[in-house]
Formats: sequence, structure tokens, C-alpha cells
Amino acid sequence: MQIGIFGTGMVGRVLSAALVAKGHAVMLGTRDPRATAVRREPDRYTGESFADWTAAHPTVRLGTYADAAAFGGLVMNATSGHGSLPAVQAAGSALDGKILIDIANPLDFSKGMPPSLFVGITDSLGEQIQRAAPKARVVKSLNTIAAPLMANPRALAAGDHTMFVAGDDESAKTTVTTFLRDELGWTDVIDIGGIEASRATESLLLPWARLFGLFGSPMLAFKVVR
Amino acid sequence: MQIGIFGTGMVGRVLSAALVAKGHAVMLGTRDPRATAVRREPDRYTGESFADWTAAHPTVRLGTYADAAAFGGLVMNATSGHGSLPAVQAAGSALDGKILIDIANPLDFSKGMPPSLFVGITDSLGEQIQRAAPKARVVKSLNTIAAPLMANPRALAAGDHTMFVAGDDESAKTTVTTFLRDELGWTDVIDIGGIEASRATESLLLPWARLFGLFGSPMLAFKVVR
Repeated sequence: MQIGIFGTGMVGRVLSAALVAKGHAVMLGTRDPRATAVRREPDRYTGESFADWTAAHPTVRLGTYADAAAFGGLVMNATSGHGSLPAVQAAGSALDGKILIDIANPLDFSKGMPPSLFVGITDSLGEQIQRAAPKARVVKSLNTIAAPLMANPRALAAGDHTMFVAGDDESAKTTVTTFLRDELGWTDVIDIGGIEASRATESLLLPWARLFGLFGSPMLAFKVVR
Repeated sequence: MQIGIFGTGMVGRVLSAALVAKGHAVMLGTRDPRATAVRREPDRYTGESFADWTAAHPTVRLGTYADAAAFGGLVMNATSGHGSLPAVQAAGSALDGKILIDIANPLDFSKGMPPSLFVGITDSLGEQIQRAAPKARVVKSLNTIAAPLMANPRALAAGDHTMFVAGDDESAKTTVTTFLRDELGWTDVIDIGGIEASRATESLLLPWARLFGLFGSPMLAFKVVR
């Protein structure tokens, strides 16, 4: 499948490498592809510059947000929370009709660690993105775990933990659930509701961030026991 | 042990019955004990009036909030979210030095189901209660599951799910963790931080409420997989 991914940070890199390894064609979307391609400063999380990373992953394409949206049969938003609406707006009509898996979280680091959320309890980043791209079929998912687990859930507890999908388009959620299961290996996927249920899954970042600080490892996940 | 419980609704009833069965002495605290004792209207969740319930549980004492706080070697707040601060204020100095397990959630049903939260992301009911009773040793816990699971976690998945404690008093958290383990049967208790971590555990009610609506059963819990 052709997959477009917004964002060239850790999440975009980990996901694209994993998806290419599974035989998919990936284009990363960024604001200014020429500038990004030669970026030499180390990534804040991995320490690897984008120039070095892209040299090591030559099959991953790089384009604008609109290019990546047009390229993808499936599009994923892996930007930072603050970068999400600008990315979606830049992609514009290239997102019309596309399934957009929104992975971003509205993390607010302005008060230090652990982060808070800059979108409150009565709205969510997922809803803001759906409103900004009303013809896209937004499915909030994969935002409740760290990048290494997104494409490899079995790396933790043999995959015995839960993933959520939230969105207003039922067939998009079905497609994403199948993608999560067949391409990424998720076995327990719960359809938690419409896009407004992003309020619930984004709020999981509050306990997630505290547990990350406590354990000193991002290899943690929530399982819904029922 | 002598245990005081604020609130005569479903949570207070389930907890007091379970604790009495385990050999503890329990006093329920309410605003007006004489009025509560003869209440004939059915409980909104269980359908049983308090008068009928108390007749079936004659060893459970009933007093004011201050009486229950004074009675308890351990005090539990099992009022509704909106009833919590009035209860704590009514208890007054009787809470000084006491460990207060705060089980309540700031649920906002004003917009229908699922509920939202009336305390936001940058504050929590747990913190409000600690501020209202600065000499009490508040430990937020047991608020992430339904009443039947609080005192009987093994009723779901043989107890293989997670409970949190949050609070500023380390020795109070140690006492509560031991109580949860030895008296109620919780095996996985995570100390998630100071009382401000109540923001994280209260926000779990957002996904909890949606999952409750989805499954049609309150027998659900979160397990932190790590």
C-alpha cells in the first residue's frame, strides 16, 4: 500500500521504517522538503539527524504535506500536537476523501514534566483536525503508546494490550482496524466511538506521561480488562 | 479496624458491607443521619431504599460526616463528585491527621451521557479535597473502577488489573497500599505520584465511561502493562 505520513520526527521515522520493511511504499510529508532533507541537527529524541536517517532509509520518499496526502492510500498524522493543524491545513484538499489516522497528542510541555494537554476535556485535537479537514475521514488511533510499540505491539507482553479507534466514519474505522491487525499486529482494537471520543483517548496521555516518568521507559501500555 | 465512609449511595453501601464482612467496624457519614435513616425512596442505582438497606445491615453505624471522620482510623470519601467538598467541609477538624481515601470523581452529567468532568486538566477533585482539608492525609484511589470491584478485584480477570494511589503523604500511601492489598485483595497497586496525579487518574473516567456505555457492564478495569 502507499502510505503518506505527516512528520519527520521519531514517530514518522519509526513508522515509515517499519512499514517499508513490511513492503509498503511510504512518503513522509514536511513543511519544506528541501530544508528537511539536509537537516543536520540531531533529533531531540533519537539524536540522529534527518539527513543521516534518510541516507539510511533511501526508499522512504519525502515531500510536502500535500504531496504525502496525495501519495497515500492511507495517511497518518505523526506531527507534534502543535504542528498538527498547520500540517493538515497545508495538505488542504489533498486530504479530501482520505483516511487520516491521527496519532498526535495535544501535549503541553510549557509547565515542565509531566506534560499537560493544551486541548481540554470538552474538545480534542482529533476533533480539531476533523473540523480543519472536514472531507478527510479522521480516525484517532495509535496515540496512546510510544513509537516503538505502534508498529510492533508484540514487543510488550506479547501484544496483550489494547488499542482504540475513534472516528465518525464507520468504514474508515473498519479499514484502520484491519490495518492495525494485519499490518501492525494489534490483536485487541476497541472502537470507542465517534471522533469526539478522542477526548477520552487523548486524556490517557495524562496517566501515560506520569507512568513513563515513573518507570523510566516508554514500553508501557493500557489493557482494557473486561 | 474502624472505618468511616462518607456517602450512603451505592459505593458507600457496597464498601461498608464488604468491610463489615471482613470484620471491620464501619460508620457511614451523611449530612443528616436522622433523615437518611428513614429514607424510603429507592436508590438511583440499586433501587433499594436506605431504610431497607440499613435494616439489612444493622452493624453498619450511621452518623454525621464529622462523626464518621472521628470514628474512622481510616476514612473513605464515597460521595458524589458534587457532594465531596461539602462533606469534607462538614467533617471539619475531625479529619485532621486522618488518612482520607478519596474515591469520588468530578463527573459532569449536565450534557448527558457519557459524562464529562467538572474539574479540568490543571486541577482535580483530589487536590480540591486536600486543599479543603489541609491537615488530612488525602490518598486518591479506587476511583477508576465500579463499586463491585473496589472490594473484590478478583471478580474480574482474577484481579489482574491495576489500582493507583496518589497523594502527598508517603506514609499514608504506604498504609493505603497495604490496606488495598491485605483487606481488599488488590495485587497491582502503582504509586503514581503526589495528589496532583489525581488529574491523571480522574481523567481515566473519560475512557471508562465510554467503555461502560460500549460494553453495557461496569465490570471493566485498566491494567498498566509494562
